[in-house]
Amino acid sequence: MNGKRVMITGGLGFIGSNLAHRLVEMGAIVSIIDNLHPNGGGSLHNIDGIRDRVTIGRRNPTLGQACPNQDVVFNLAGLSSHMDSMEYPLDDAQNNVMAQIELLEGARRYNPGVKIVYASTRQVYGKPEYLHVNETHPVRPVDVNGINKWTAEEYHRLYHEVYGLRTCSLRLTNTIGPRMRIKDAKQGFIGEWIRRVLTGEPFEVWGGEQVRDFTYVDDAVEAFILAAQCDESDGQAYNLGARMPYKLIEVAGMLCDVAGQGSYVVKSFPTDRKRIDIGSYWADYSKANEDLSWNPTVELCEALRLTLDYYRCRLEHYT
Amino acid sequence: MNGKRVMITGGLGFIGSNLAHRLVEMGAIVSIIDNLHPNGGGSLHNIDGIRDRVTIGRRNPTLGQACPNQDVVFNLAGLSSHMDSMEYPLDDAQNNVMAQIELLEGARRYNPGVKIVYASTRQVYGKPEYLHVNETHPVRPVDVNGINKWTAEEYHRLYHEVYGLRTCSLRLTNTIGPRMRIKDAKQGFIGEWIRRVLTGEPFEVWGGEQVRDFTYVDDAVEAFILAAQCDESDGQAYNLGARMPYKLIEVAGMLCDVAGQGSYVVKSFPTDRKRIDIGSYWADYSKANEDLSWNPTVELCEALRLTLDYYRCRLEHYT
Repeated sequence: MNGKRVMITGGLGFIGSNLAHRLVEMGAIVSIIDNLHPNGGGSLHNIDGIRDRVTIGRRNPTLGQACPNQDVVFNLAGLSSHMDSMEYPLDDAQNNVMAQIELLEGARRYNPGVKIVYASTRQVYGKPEYLHVNETHPVRPVDVNGINKWTAEEYHRLYHEVYGLRTCSLRLTNTIGPRMRIKDAKQGFIGEWIRRVLTGEPFEVWGGEQVRDFTYVDDAVEAFILAAQCDESDGQAYNLGARMPYKLIEVAGMLCDVAGQGSYVVKSFPTDRKRIDIGSYWADYSKANEDLSWNPTVELCEALRLTLDYYRCRLEHYT
Repeated sequence: MNGKRVMITGGLGFIGSNLAHRLVEMGAIVSIIDNLHPNGGGSLHNIDGIRDRVTIGRRNPTLGQACPNQDVVFNLAGLSSHMDSMEYPLDDAQNNVMAQIELLEGARRYNPGVKIVYASTRQVYGKPEYLHVNETHPVRPVDVNGINKWTAEEYHRLYHEVYGLRTCSLRLTNTIGPRMRIKDAKQGFIGEWIRRVLTGEPFEVWGGEQVRDFTYVDDAVEAFILAAQCDESDGQAYNLGARMPYKLIEVAGMLCDVAGQGSYVVKSFPTDRKRIDIGSYWADYSKANEDLSWNPTVELCEALRLTLDYYRCRLEHYT
């Protein structure tokens, strides 16, 4: 990516900012677009250390104009909270649907040669009908966020098929690591757990028998970069995942072990969350492995250690 | 429906206005919401004869407030032009996605017992993988309109599954009859053909070997009313269709025969339309037959005759 012009939408957020750090390191010319949505993961602290080596813009209406010079757009802008999407479905659609059309229209009109890698989600599958879930699993989202992210993924596919735009989508599962939002559970329960472990509050495990897979953020970042460099990914969607899935109750124990502190209580699911919960999930990422040569390299235990280390000395910026 | 309070979104449009005529006849208390979008099918002429027996409102922001007193919402508001959706995708999403969330949010908050029947489309399937197409056929839209209508249908399903809202969707195929937009092809090629036959201009048949099924509007209206009266339809989606499909070249010939006038030229597909064309389509409507006891009753030949009769004496209002 040395010398490449890349734009990261949502570049102040969790994965976007980690991607920015990596791309700066690789010598790319990085511009970040982020609307710092109050329910999103964006924070200027996420680009501490590279702030003078990237340019930053608010999204829209500059998006169409910002895109023309770029070689790659890493398209990570969007909302990801399932509960917020049920509470504020219009806001979710504005950010996950309308903003995506604007980006794609800008790209096809002003920079049709650009490569776009979109951050989609395992949420598009809904409750898995089988494990592990591959990309041909039926799509049946269980919340507004899942529907809207699917809609945006479909736009990306369509703009490839109709206009030849070089788009692809990565369907992320639970991603963990430095720079995630941990002040609440809007980017997933694991952020909430980590904060509580570090502040000495017990965290809650709902159910506990559900199985989940966790991708360390550096591995997710690597997948975005590999997808951007691969022609074969045009028009495709890929699961990310992990070598091993874990029961949530195992993750809770592991987190406290690794932290050397923390406690948790096991509870049954709150009603409003149960109805949009997907149960167990474990991705089959063999397609990403074959096409992109992608492999997750950081095991959960190490991922938790690295994540805790990051927040231990920066907790005031994230709580 | 006698004495029932019903709201028809898109009630000045093609199918919505035919539904309004039928419901007034049945003794329902009909209110119409329509934004008279310039690319839609809305026209005050469509309610000639019942104008003083319905109430009319513009949609939004009154939608949430308009819904509370209704027994049934016939939800037909939306844009249907495939070409427009590619040219103006944001406008399509505004009308087919954002407006649908607003309606459903209004319903679940202020009138959770209401029955909602949504006008979806066969366009959600994209290019058929097999004929005839049943409701379990894969969903893979070939244009922005198809994606957005699918998104709206998914919202309806979700609001049923999560909130118990009594929603269902009808996936319409080519519908023809009085009160359709014929001044251009925005509501389908058949409108364009009918106008040209009546004004003495030759019409164009692109390809011609494609197979399509045509539902007469009175049959479609009947399906909406049956779906509204049926508890079993909650959370379901149903294809509408026709007993017999026809090749477009056959339809062209039949139209001129029935009209006793008109001519056409056969051409290959224009490039911009070819890439979003779905080829042949023929719906399997057995699910609607089983659950709703619905059957199409008007054959294409008779449907064309009735449609031509309607426009012959009202052409100035529709061109």
